[in-house]
Amino acid sequence: MQNPTACLLVIGNEVLSGRTQDLNINFIAKGLGAIGIPLREVRVIPDVPETIITTLNDVRVRFDHVFTTGGIGPTHDDITSECVAMAFGVPWEKHSQAWARMEAHYASTPGGLAAFNPARQRMATMPRGATLIDNAISIAPGFTIGNVHVMAGVPRIMQSMFATLAPTLAGGPPIVSRAVHATGTGEGLIASGLADIQQRYPALDLGSYPYYRAGGQGVAIVAKGNDAAACEAAIVEVTALFVSLDVVPMQGEPPAA
Amino acid sequence: MQNPTACLLVIGNEVLSGRTQDLNINFIAKGLGAIGIPLREVRVIPDVPETIITTLNDVRVRFDHVFTTGGIGPTHDDITSECVAMAFGVPWEKHSQAWARMEAHYASTPGGLAAFNPARQRMATMPRGATLIDNAISIAPGFTIGNVHVMAGVPRIMQSMFATLAPTLAGGPPIVSRAVHATGTGEGLIASGLADIQQRYPALDLGSYPYYRAGGQGVAIVAKGNDAAACEAAIVEVTALFVSLDVVPMQGEPPAA
Repeated sequence: MQNPTACLLVIGNEVLSGRTQDLNINFIAKGLGAIGIPLREVRVIPDVPETIITTLNDVRVRFDHVFTTGGIGPTHDDITSECVAMAFGVPWEKHSQAWARMEAHYASTPGGLAAFNPARQRMATMPRGATLIDNAISIAPGFTIGNVHVMAGVPRIMQSMFATLAPTLAGGPPIVSRAVHATGTGEGLIASGLADIQQRYPALDLGSYPYYRAGGQGVAIVAKGNDAAACEAAIVEVTALFVSLDVVPMQGEPPAA
Repeated sequence: MQNPTACLLVIGNEVLSGRTQDLNINFIAKGLGAIGIPLREVRVIPDVPETIITTLNDVRVRFDHVFTTGGIGPTHDDITSECVAMAFGVPWEKHSQAWARMEAHYASTPGGLAAFNPARQRMATMPRGATLIDNAISIAPGFTIGNVHVMAGVPRIMQSMFATLAPTLAGGPPIVSRAVHATGTGEGLIASGLADIQQRYPALDLGSYPYYRAGGQGVAIVAKGNDAAACEAAIVEVTALFVSLDVVPMQGEPPAA
């Protein structure tokens, strides 16, 4: 069974300038793997309309799902939503459900309905045909249009949106992994044997990752795919490879540094 | 004066699967800003030859510099180097300088010259015309060909390669930033005034970033560009905007969470 594929667009100058350490890629990568929609590409792009539109139109035809983070707030640099409308060639207009919800929210705040100002109204303005992605943290929703899922950039808000969205997506078998590691050996020693094992398990992704710890350096081998039994079998073979090289295999990933 | 532009390709299934939290994007983003070669796009792509070749050929004509991380080790999943050769249409061949250095290194190890096995020899095999990027940590070098700079994926090795490479690149004026933040206000309240300030400083990138801390939530405004005086002036205007809204501006970014 084929897994659907995903692409993530991280939209925001703050990641490209180094101001912000991105945490969304890793969260979404894990979350999508768990529902069997493996992440196949990420692009980090600036808050530039032509770039957002061109990139979105490039990737939305090549992947089953596209997720975006960032650029849906109320300020001048939040332009994702209108760019998505332009990419789809649909009007960017008041979303009645989002609008009513935000209007009710601000009406009950100390500022009253005046607090639902034009900047905040932009957060209730969406491409025609968008369906809302709710979240438990903020009043402003994300949205889905076609195969594009538009989420906030602030990690805890994005995570809440992803929790709402993920159960609604039809995934494939979850991506699972098994690992083994050994200290006191190097990638250069196991490379040949490892390549042979990869050839015997073409459906798996067998990754080799050197690590450096106070307790010594070594190599972790991770088998990933949607067939847990095959992952197990491949890791048994890697374990035997370590033994044949007189190093002591340890199950799983090495402990964090 | 125009700044040269950069694109980064993060090559590796481990970032896309969520196995590894990427740290290279942020390091390279900051490092390139400091030498005036702002990072304009990042792509995270898998260890798939067609994807690496197509992506590299797409971006190397669109940016002044392309940096890659990952995929230059000795194992079967390390395919960046030969893919770069294919992208440039040049032979992938023994690099005499890298080869001699690695041969000498392994000859003096307990394993002797036999330890310079075919897997490790791949790390001394490069696109024709490559010049080496040395590093202080490992014996295997990265390389530059044309405007493409190929570096390791392991952060401390990549960082050492970047330290060698950066001084050799002709950058523009450094990208600098100034910031001000205020607790107890929201993006929706300052958005209109902020958009006006951005319009008065079109050469700057004025970013608005909400933050959430135990001490309260607020907004940080960051002005970035290669004109420090303009950044200062814009932040003075943002400071006045905060004051006009009866919130207390604090210079710089908010303290880490």
